[in-house]
Amino acid sequence: MADPRFFSGRGPLPLGRVAAIAGAGLPDGADPDRPVEDVAGLDAAGPAHLSFFDNRAYLDAFRVSRAGFCITRPAMAGEAPAGMLVLASPEPFRSFCLAAQAFHPPAAAVPGVAPGAIVDPTARIDAGAEIAAGAVVGARAEVGPRVRIGANAVVGEAVAIGADTVVGPGASLSHCLIGERVTIYPGARVGQDGFGFAMHRQGHVRLPQLGRVIIEDDVEVGANTTIDRGAGPDTVIGRGTMIDNLVQIGHNVVIGPGSVIVAQVGISGSTKLGEFVVLAGQSAIAGHLTIGAGARVGPQAGVVRDVAPGEDVIGSPAVARRQFWRQVVAVARLARKESG
Amino acid sequence: MADPRFFSGRGPLPLGRVAAIAGAGLPDGADPDRPVEDVAGLDAAGPAHLSFFDNRAYLDAFRVSRAGFCITRPAMAGEAPAGMLVLASPEPFRSFCLAAQAFHPPAAAVPGVAPGAIVDPTARIDAGAEIAAGAVVGARAEVGPRVRIGANAVVGEAVAIGADTVVGPGASLSHCLIGERVTIYPGARVGQDGFGFAMHRQGHVRLPQLGRVIIEDDVEVGANTTIDRGAGPDTVIGRGTMIDNLVQIGHNVVIGPGSVIVAQVGISGSTKLGEFVVLAGQSAIAGHLTIGAGARVGPQAGVVRDVAPGEDVIGSPAVARRQFWRQVVAVARLARKESG
Amino acid sequence: MADPRFFSGRGPLPLGRVAAIAGAGLPDGADPDRPVEDVAGLDAAGPAHLSFFDNRAYLDAFRVSRAGFCITRPAMAGEAPAGMLVLASPEPFRSFCLAAQAFHPPAAAVPGVAPGAIVDPTARIDAGAEIAAGAVVGARAEVGPRVRIGANAVVGEAVAIGADTVVGPGASLSHCLIGERVTIYPGARVGQDGFGFAMHRQGHVRLPQLGRVIIEDDVEVGANTTIDRGAGPDTVIGRGTMIDNLVQIGHNVVIGPGSVIVAQVGISGSTKLGEFVVLAGQSAIAGHLTIGAGARVGPQAGVVRDVAPGEDVIGSPAVARRQFWRQVVAVARLARKESG
Repeated sequence: MADPRFFSGRGPLPLGRVAAIAGAGLPDGADPDRPVEDVAGLDAAGPAHLSFFDNRAYLDAFRVSRAGFCITRPAMAGEAPAGMLVLASPEPFRSFCLAAQAFHPPAAAVPGVAPGAIVDPTARIDAGAEIAAGAVVGARAEVGPRVRIGANAVVGEAVAIGADTVVGPGASLSHCLIGERVTIYPGARVGQDGFGFAMHRQGHVRLPQLGRVIIEDDVEVGANTTIDRGAGPDTVIGRGTMIDNLVQIGHNVVIGPGSVIVAQVGISGSTKLGEFVVLAGQSAIAGHLTIGAGARVGPQAGVVRDVAPGEDVIGSPAVARRQFWRQVVAVARLARKESG
Repeated sequence: MADPRFFSGRGPLPLGRVAAIAGAGLPDGADPDRPVEDVAGLDAAGPAHLSFFDNRAYLDAFRVSRAGFCITRPAMAGEAPAGMLVLASPEPFRSFCLAAQAFHPPAAAVPGVAPGAIVDPTARIDAGAEIAAGAVVGARAEVGPRVRIGANAVVGEAVAIGADTVVGPGASLSHCLIGERVTIYPGARVGQDGFGFAMHRQGHVRLPQLGRVIIEDDVEVGANTTIDRGAGPDTVIGRGTMIDNLVQIGHNVVIGPGSVIVAQVGISGSTKLGEFVVLAGQSAIAGHLTIGAGARVGPQAGVVRDVAPGEDVIGSPAVARRQFWRQVVAVARLARKESG
Repeated sequence: MADPRFFSGRGPLPLGRVAAIAGAGLPDGADPDRPVEDVAGLDAAGPAHLSFFDNRAYLDAFRVSRAGFCITRPAMAGEAPAGMLVLASPEPFRSFCLAAQAFHPPAAAVPGVAPGAIVDPTARIDAGAEIAAGAVVGARAEVGPRVRIGANAVVGEAVAIGADTVVGPGASLSHCLIGERVTIYPGARVGQDGFGFAMHRQGHVRLPQLGRVIIEDDVEVGANTTIDRGAGPDTVIGRGTMIDNLVQIGHNVVIGPGSVIVAQVGISGSTKLGEFVVLAGQSAIAGHLTIGAGARVGPQAGVVRDVAPGEDVIGSPAVARRQFWRQVVAVARLARKESG
């Protein structure tokens, strides 16, 4: 259960409302007014909690769970322990996430400029926005309704931030336009110069970076992630893309909507990703490449050529996943043979 | 020698006291009142300095060192140059570290709230704690005795920090309980949401992250490292674990006591490490795995299966170290044969 | 074209001056007084803009570019579209960078200490330096002429910063001496303790880190990059070296002048790099190694032995580039044979 020191949920909520929010079906005869206290995992849940079961690896935990309510696929309902009320959903995890959001909505903005925040007089701050202690907002910046700017964050000159966006503590933004419902996690760096210069023995010569960063609606940018602004074109993060911590995104990169970029990935300059691309942790994409829609790149992969839509690659240099595993097996066999 | 611009040591200290602190033995007839000025490396040390010699790769440097005092293993004492007083220890480097700490103890807290720091009136700050300029401490936070909160650091609501802990400049903490004698380096991010959501074409749905981060006593968290809070369970860093810079630790990860996590490592969600695990630089561990006590993971390894206690793995995908090197040799031979 | 919301160029500039700054030749009869508005890429440029063409991969873009002015190699001038004035240079990209800097010079310091900045009374701040809102400057620090300290940056005790250096928002510096014309990007961490301790079952024992970080003139340190101070010797970044984002540089590392360190690289303690070394993205160098002048390390390489001057290595463990690609081919063939 969530520690009340840090979390104050909205529960209890009536079962019928929870099911409706979750897009899950109640069994016949269930009382829609039964109170649900909160959400919890299968192990931690008690009789007043809602849990979920989707991955069969957790079947044993499901069978002995004390959860009073549980979302699962219709086909799995028969495995439920006695006393558990089962809510049916074709997408149990998604349903659970929706329910959990109802119990634990994002914190609301506390409108106003906190003591110790420094806001340039030419910045335009919506009356419903929150500027926390120590935050700095530069000249001509625009901060939309219900935006929350965290403690000691820095919003650079002329940066625009759409409604309901959250900027975490200590993050810094410059030369960027940020959409609505975006979350920038603590310490993220958005909009600084890209890494562009002419190499030369007498001293590398920097190229002024004259593009911007455009972050569309519903994007998340992880803690201490860095997104450089474009060199001339813009760096663009498409709507709904989720970026984890410590990711590096070079100048002019364009990431399509709905992509998922796991921690410590690096994307080199001018590479374009289609929609719904998944890059697993610590993978890297060389510059000036095209990664097609729906492509998947495995953990620690090093991609040095274009990837077709829907292709699944891994390895360094990255190859098709099936080929990679064949190589792994072949090399293991070769080594055994030689030492045997 | 340490630059006095930045370091003001406690020396000179009497030889007998230094030896006692270091757990090192003095030779017969040594004068325990001889002053030792400071510690220094074999190359840099002079007649008033204490050095150490342990790794035989540095034997030449030992033989010509001008150090007046040197800690080494008894078996190596015979190689010492004339005029060097040898202190004997079975663990010369550990003894040297202990001695060095005596000359250079951690800076003491300057009690009080500095100008420009913003402390919520409901926060409880020990009278002996230091809150540096620009730091922000949120509502209901608890800061223990002799704690040092660095300039522009952010301590979130209800965060608790034990005695003698140091939080570096620009670091941010939320949803966490921090033990005693912990060091959080500059820019570290502790306690933000983990990377958890249901993927969906109509928009990924975020799962509220309802766990905490628990950091036990004597832990170090490196600069710009990120530790996400649990999704429901907690993320836990065991007592005495050392975490280097730019490390990513996902939600629900549990790290056993005394582990060593080198720079740029990534540990995916829900993975558990036993005690005294060593993860070398840039290695990565997939999610939901168990890494046994005393296991060692090599640099750039990619671990995708459980690792047994004491096992030593490397490669991507990681295999036993011996097998990895056999594979490296076999592949090199194969390539030579084909091109030969 | 640069968005005027964020960029206000110095254009128009007369063609003759632009050519002189760029070190590029004008064709016979060109009017040196023709105005050039700004720089732009081949695709985006219009009749009043200066572009460049160097990489033949962009030949098609060159042939249809609407740029009024374009820098290219003399041999390529014949491919220019009608109406384009061609400036000849043996190094078109370098010439273009120089021209672009003339249109978009670095922002000048706004002298003085902004509201909300906290400067210790013993710090010495040049009258022409800018200390932005929320920045903290410690005791005895020295900040030179025209230096810009960004919002919420932290300059530690006794740190010295040379003329024309820029410290980005939220960066933190301690125990370091910074040269002239250095750029420290947002969130970079310079000078904290290195990762040094004696491992021990009863608790690892930290070694006080008594060295400094020396950053020579004209260096760039990327966003959220971490550079630890030396353990006894110094950590040194040579003149003109360019370091990208999220790079880890361990204690006692010495990097020669003019080196290029791409994003997410890790350099372990006490390793020395010669001049003009290039480390590609996500590569890693083990500790106590020597990397010769002009060496090149490929992306994701893991270097575990010394690298000779001019050598080109890749792979993990890294081998000569040619050998690496032979191995890649041999393994692919082996896997095909086994599964075929």
